[in-house]
Amino acid sequence: MIGHRTWAIAEGYIPGGSVSESRELQSHEAACVLNATDWDASVEITLYFEDREPAGPYRFKVGAKRTRHLRFNDLADPEPVPRDTPYSSIIISNVPVVVQHTRLDSRNTHIALLSTVAFPVEG
Amino acid sequence: MIGHRTWAIAEGYIPGGSVSESRELQSHEAACVLNATDWDASVEITLYFEDREPAGPYRFKVGAKRTRHLRFNDLADPEPVPRDTPYSSIIISNVPVVVQHTRLDSRNTHIALLSTVAFPVEG
Amino acid sequence: MIGHRTWAIAEGYIPGGSVSESRELQSHEAACVLNATDWDASVEITLYFEDREPAGPYRFKVGAKRTRHLRFNDLADPEPVPRDTPYSSIIISNVPVVVQHTRLDSRNTHIALLSTVAFPVEG
Amino acid sequence: MIGHRTWAIAEGYIPGGSVSESRELQSHEAACVLNATDWDASVEITLYFEDREPAGPYRFKVGAKRTRHLRFNDLADPEPVPRDTPYSSIIISNVPVVVQHTRLDSRNTHIALLSTVAFPVEG
Repeated sequence: MIGHRTWAIAEGYIPGGSVSESRELQSHEAACVLNATDWDASVEITLYFEDREPAGPYRFKVGAKRTRHLRFNDLADPEPVPRDTPYSSIIISNVPVVVQHTRLDSRNTHIALLSTVAFPVEG
Repeated sequence: MIGHRTWAIAEGYIPGGSVSESRELQSHEAACVLNATDWDASVEITLYFEDREPAGPYRFKVGAKRTRHLRFNDLADPEPVPRDTPYSSIIISNVPVVVQHTRLDSRNTHIALLSTVAFPVEG
Repeated sequence: MIGHRTWAIAEGYIPGGSVSESRELQSHEAACVLNATDWDASVEITLYFEDREPAGPYRFKVGAKRTRHLRFNDLADPEPVPRDTPYSSIIISNVPVVVQHTRLDSRNTHIALLSTVAFPVEG
Repeated sequence: MIGHRTWAIAEGYIPGGSVSESRELQSHEAACVLNATDWDASVEITLYFEDREPAGPYRFKVGAKRTRHLRFNDLADPEPVPRDTPYSSIIISNVPVVVQHTRLDSRNTHIALLSTVAFPVEG
């Protein structure tokens, strides 16, 4: 069984501006979730902020032997993710998954990218 | 023996466009595989998608005390990797290796880079 | 309890120049610290240099169930962080936290980003 | 004692071109090595290639409670590091250190950055 059930991403920030409105080049953050198991994954994301209570959980599914590149920009229920605001996230799945965090920043004419594997939590 | 036999890369996305057609500056993703052991490594990559069955395995060799910077763009057998499509990958080797993931994105006039060590799986 | 009490960031460098003086686009480095516990975190950062004794500790708080995106640029007590100077940092918290390191480099007209989870230390 | 004695960096590539010849903005790769111990560190780097025998060891020191941002571009003894050539590296220290890998790519008018913590090897 490949992965962990709990992951943390300490860095989070969706730039409010974008040089392009095309979905591909819009400033965004994504959590890429790989579920290599034979069972569908039920995943919950909780968001942490600097000066308010956490938001969530945001719930979504990742099918067995499927990946999902989830954009934080698209989260809407229970509330949208504020732009230009630092946040962190905890991701909990009922089956082991692998999580990687990526941001595409297109504020300033040309894009910049960052990515890192999320932090896997034991247990 | 340096490394692990199984690695996961949750993030995967080959941008369909490139500002340059030169091989060095073309948009691409690579899995850099270091085999520091004294045995040749037989490596298999399986690709996972959002809405279809996995593809692969793609098979390649990394010689003893050699590295290989494998471009996902170049994978052809059993099928090419679709562009502009989210995917994830699992990399399995018969000897311990170290895997790092890198993307060069040259869609938007100037290049952007991301890189992270892949996620090592126990056992 | 999610995280570790000690983290290391080997890479550190605040570019001295910025194409923009807006706070969002100014060249900077940040340590994003997520405290998902029910207790406030007291955090100490020590900076290591190439040719002088370490600086610090710099002390700050991260509330229970809060995140803090701390800019190294803003550190002032006991001394500011020199620009254009390589450094490393050790981050120690009294409760487990998760730390991610990010740099935004806006020296050269357009921004570049890097990020990686800091190195968690056992014990 | 913070860190590990052996680290691997699977990705390695020094772009041959640079838009700027200033040392700060020249295309380069660096291994940032933090030695937070009370003993000087003797470090050896071995480089691995795709189609030739490994090079090295390259030897250098990192003082007690010091960091060193070592540029692969500057390695000269026993031989320089070829440009535009994929490589990997293994870094071995006699005391525990923390290693992070960074590339600055200034081939294409504006800079791009990547960074990731190196892969720590047990034992």
